[in-house]
Amino acid sequence: MNLTTLDDILTARAALPDYIRLTPVLPIARDSSEVGRERLWVKCENLQVTGAYKIRAAFNMLHTLTPEQRRKGVVMTSSGNFAQGFAYAGAQMGVPIVVVMLDRTSPYKVDATRGYGAEVYFSGTDAAERQPTVERVAAERGMTAIDTWEEAPIPPGHGTIGLEILEQCPDVERVLVPVSSGGMAAGIAAAIKLSRPDVEVIGVQPEKANAAYVSRRAGRPTTIDYWDSIADGLSAVRPGERPFAHLQRFLDDIVLITEKDIARAFRTLLLRGKLLAEPAGAVASAAFLSGVVDASKRTVAILSGGNVTEKMVRQMLDMAGD
Amino acid sequence: MNLTTLDDILTARAALPDYIRLTPVLPIARDSSEVGRERLWVKCENLQVTGAYKIRAAFNMLHTLTPEQRRKGVVMTSSGNFAQGFAYAGAQMGVPIVVVMLDRTSPYKVDATRGYGAEVYFSGTDAAERQPTVERVAAERGMTAIDTWEEAPIPPGHGTIGLEILEQCPDVERVLVPVSSGGMAAGIAAAIKLSRPDVEVIGVQPEKANAAYVSRRAGRPTTIDYWDSIADGLSAVRPGERPFAHLQRFLDDIVLITEKDIARAFRTLLLRGKLLAEPAGAVASAAFLSGVVDASKRTVAILSGGNVTEKMVRQMLDMAGD
Repeated sequence: MNLTTLDDILTARAALPDYIRLTPVLPIARDSSEVGRERLWVKCENLQVTGAYKIRAAFNMLHTLTPEQRRKGVVMTSSGNFAQGFAYAGAQMGVPIVVVMLDRTSPYKVDATRGYGAEVYFSGTDAAERQPTVERVAAERGMTAIDTWEEAPIPPGHGTIGLEILEQCPDVERVLVPVSSGGMAAGIAAAIKLSRPDVEVIGVQPEKANAAYVSRRAGRPTTIDYWDSIADGLSAVRPGERPFAHLQRFLDDIVLITEKDIARAFRTLLLRGKLLAEPAGAVASAAFLSGVVDASKRTVAILSGGNVTEKMVRQMLDMAGD
Repeated sequence: MNLTTLDDILTARAALPDYIRLTPVLPIARDSSEVGRERLWVKCENLQVTGAYKIRAAFNMLHTLTPEQRRKGVVMTSSGNFAQGFAYAGAQMGVPIVVVMLDRTSPYKVDATRGYGAEVYFSGTDAAERQPTVERVAAERGMTAIDTWEEAPIPPGHGTIGLEILEQCPDVERVLVPVSSGGMAAGIAAAIKLSRPDVEVIGVQPEKANAAYVSRRAGRPTTIDYWDSIADGLSAVRPGERPFAHLQRFLDDIVLITEKDIARAFRTLLLRGKLLAEPAGAVASAAFLSGVVDASKRTVAILSGGNVTEKMVRQMLDMAGD
C-alpha cells in the first residue's frame, strides 16, 4: 500500500476552498490562575463549517474525481459528520450526494444532512446492509461509491489540519488525536511526522471504544467484540486497513481515557474554553486534562467537532459530576 | 466633553499586547440549510483572554497611567468581567490591582478575580458604598481610583473591537452592540462611524434593563427605577455621562429584546455556533435572531463574553423552551 506523502497533503491543502475555514488554535486553562501559562491548546474544528473536520476530506475526495464522476454524483454511508461534510461540499461543488443511513439514525442528523442539500437513502435496520446498499445505489444511478474508510484522498484531506497546527503553533511538542476508523489520525500523524518528526503524535480512544488500541497491540486491524461509549462519533469496532497502516507508521502511541474523563473535558472546554464539543470532540483533550498524558510537553489536542443536541449537552454536564 | 477620536482608538490598538487576542468573526446559521448564506456574524469576544472583551479597556487604562501610578497600583469596583480584565492585565503589567466587591458577589467571580492575581476587598452589603470604598482604599494605599464608567481611556480600548470588525468583515453593513453603562457601545460606535459612517451601529438592551434606551428618548442620562434581566452583565440602571455623549453622537438607534429572545439566542450560539455566551453576550445576537432588526443587512453582533456557571447554562437552556 502506498502511504500518504507530504506532497499529497500539501496538494490537498492548496486545493482547499475559502469556505473551509482556517480554524483557530486556542489555549485551555483549568482555572483563571493558569491563564497565560497554559500547556494545552485545542485546534477548533468544532468551529469548522458544518461543525466538524470531515468537510476537509469530503472536499478532497470530491476534488479528485473526474468531471464526469462529479456530474453523476457520489454515494456513501455515514450517520454523522461525514454525511454533513459531503452534503455541504457537494452542494458547493455541484456534485449530487446520496447518503445511506440506517432507519434508526437520529432525525437531527437526517435533517442536518438534508439541510446541507444531500439526499438521504434509508437502508433498513441492519448495519451490515449499508455498504451493499451503497454499491446498489451506485450501480443503479451511475454514481461513484465512496468507502470513507479506505479511499486514498481521505487521509491527505484530514492531514491539512496537521499542517495548520505546525504553522499556528510552531513550538508544539505533542499532538493528541481522537481515533475511530483512523482516517483523521492517519492524516494528521503523516502531516506532522513527515514535516516535524520531533513532534509526538498520540492517538486517544475511550476505554470501551478501543479498536485501534487493541489492533496496535495485535499488530494488525482487529475487530473488538464490545463497544460502549458516549462518544458516538468514534463508533468504529475496527480500524480501516489503510488508516491503520498509517497509524503503525506514524503514531507514537495510543492511550485510553474513561467516559468520565470525556464528560469532564467537555465541561472544561465549555466553561473555560467557551467551546461546545461533541463527546468525540472532547476525547483528545480528555487525555491531557485527566493526566493520562503528562503536562511536560506543549500539547495541541484536536477538538474534532461540536455537533450535539441540547439533550446531549445536559447529559454530558450530568456525567461530569462535581 | 472631548469625545473619543479615531486617533485615540488607533493609538489604543497599536498598544495592545500579544496576549489580547484578535478574536475571530464567525457566521451563525439558524439551521444547516442557511450555512453558506448567513447574514449574521458574531465577533467572538467570549474567546478573548479572560473570557470577555473588558481586558481591552482595562489594558488601555493601565497603559495610560504614569510609571509611578502603575507601581502603586489601582483600585476599582466591579463584580464581573471588568474585575477579571483588570486583574489579568495588572498581573501581566506588574500593576497591583484591588477590586472592591459587595459581600454577596458570587464566589465564582471572586475566585476568578483572585485567580488572575488581584486582591478582592469586600465593601459590605450596600451597593452605594462601593465607590466611597474605592476612594478610601485609594487614599489609604496611595493607589489610583478608577471609575470604569467615566475614564477617557475606556471607550478607545473597547473601540479596538470596531476597528477589527471593519478589517475582518469589510462588507459589514450593520453592527449590533449590547449596552449597559455604555462604554463598549461608545467605543465601537465611535470606531465605526469615524471610519465608515455608512455602517449602521445599533445598541441592544433587554426590555427591563433599558436605561440607555430610556435615556436616549429623554435626551439625557436617566436612571430607571426598575431593572430585571437574566443578563447580569448589563446591570447599569443609568448610562455613564461620558459613554452616553458618545451614544448620542454615534449610535443610530437602540432596540429592545425580551428575556426569551436572549435565551433563544444563547441556544443558537451554542448549538449552531458552538460558542458559549454569557446572557449579556447573547443580547446583541438576539436582536437579529428574534427579528427585532431585519436581515436585509450583513450584520455583525458583538458576542461580548462567555463567563457563566454550569447552573446558568442549564437555566438558559430551560428558558429557551421549545
